[in-house]
Amino acid sequence: MTAPATRGLWVTLEGGDGAGKTTQAAALEAWLRQAGRAVVRTREPGGSEVGVLIRDIVLHHRGDIAPRAEALLYAADRAHHVETVVRPALARGEVVIQDRYLDSSVAYQGAGRVLDAHEVRELSLWAAKGALPELTVLLDLDPRAARERLDAADKPFDRLEAEKAEFHERVRAAFLALADAEPDRFLVVDATRPPLDIATEIRERVERVLTASSPG
Amino acid sequence: MTAPATRGLWVTLEGGDGAGKTTQAAALEAWLRQAGRAVVRTREPGGSEVGVLIRDIVLHHRGDIAPRAEALLYAADRAHHVETVVRPALARGEVVIQDRYLDSSVAYQGAGRVLDAHEVRELSLWAAKGALPELTVLLDLDPRAARERLDAADKPFDRLEAEKAEFHERVRAAFLALADAEPDRFLVVDATRPPLDIATEIRERVERVLTASSPG
Repeated sequence: MTAPATRGLWVTLEGGDGAGKTTQAAALEAWLRQAGRAVVRTREPGGSEVGVLIRDIVLHHRGDIAPRAEALLYAADRAHHVETVVRPALARGEVVIQDRYLDSSVAYQGAGRVLDAHEVRELSLWAAKGALPELTVLLDLDPRAARERLDAADKPFDRLEAEKAEFHERVRAAFLALADAEPDRFLVVDATRPPLDIATEIRERVERVLTASSPG
Repeated sequence: MTAPATRGLWVTLEGGDGAGKTTQAAALEAWLRQAGRAVVRTREPGGSEVGVLIRDIVLHHRGDIAPRAEALLYAADRAHHVETVVRPALARGEVVIQDRYLDSSVAYQGAGRVLDAHEVRELSLWAAKGALPELTVLLDLDPRAARERLDAADKPFDRLEAEKAEFHERVRAAFLALADAEPDRFLVVDATRPPLDIATEIRERVERVLTASSPG
């Protein structure tokens, strides 16, 4: 087997639901394909056949799974996905655009305040044999703005919703702290800006990474 | 809630298939019930509802699951089982008799030579929040003898079977090394002895543990 003509690139997108990850992943994919690159769009959890089964367990037993069991199931999904989907695609010189990776595990499980964020990260890194993407785009959004996007009705928050809002505030803070700790890997984008502007910003960063890492 | 009148006790049985774990677990259960103890017979993997789903994934995708993903699935099963089955039973003052626990993970995954045995053990201990049984009975048996029990036909080994035999030799050696490292927790029994003699030996050890740990 000869080495691929182009080097693989792994980009992950992070942020709360409603921040625009899907829109930006699609825009990035379209641009890369136009530029002649092979692209794999994938996600965690559920980015592999085994992962779909694992995801089913986590979702269908929500609330009934011991916290460490849940973290281990996400890590199992990750281990299989990285080994069977991400690494092979990168070895073929393709671009992997992935919805959520270990930063989501750390931010969400840490914000849940049951598990230690550092332990969750170590678990994920063990699962993935230390694999980290070259670029992680964090679509940063105030959870109240995200909620307004997801739910057009402007009802006042009840107590449960206020608790949820607090949880999502903690998730957001956790994501921002992760980005602060690894500025080279992260691109933090203000998700309230127009989607086309965001797409341009992401594209420019991806171009820079590709130029810096192109072989020869 | 008042404290249970008797203290819980957790006994695990380890050893290769065909060593007699089920026979000895049944004998121990019968004796304990006669003595008026409440007993929970359980196993890993698959000792909980979630565990059955996890076990299904591991078994139905055998060979297709990344090694770390498989180890993480077993650990997830363990985390949920210990949290929802073992700890509550012990808290009620019952005796838990369990077919296979973390020693099996360490012995089998270590013998597979893909994963590091120490890492597998650490993973299991994290899953179970460090929980270890008070007594682990290792039914030690030469794999060739076990094979003769499982397969009465006396065919010569082919190459694959010879490889399998070597694997089971490594599993046996790993179990014995684990028992050597924790003599207080382990009772190593020669599984070629008559089942009734073995049952008596196990019973005597359980009696000693119960006497030593009885409250008041």
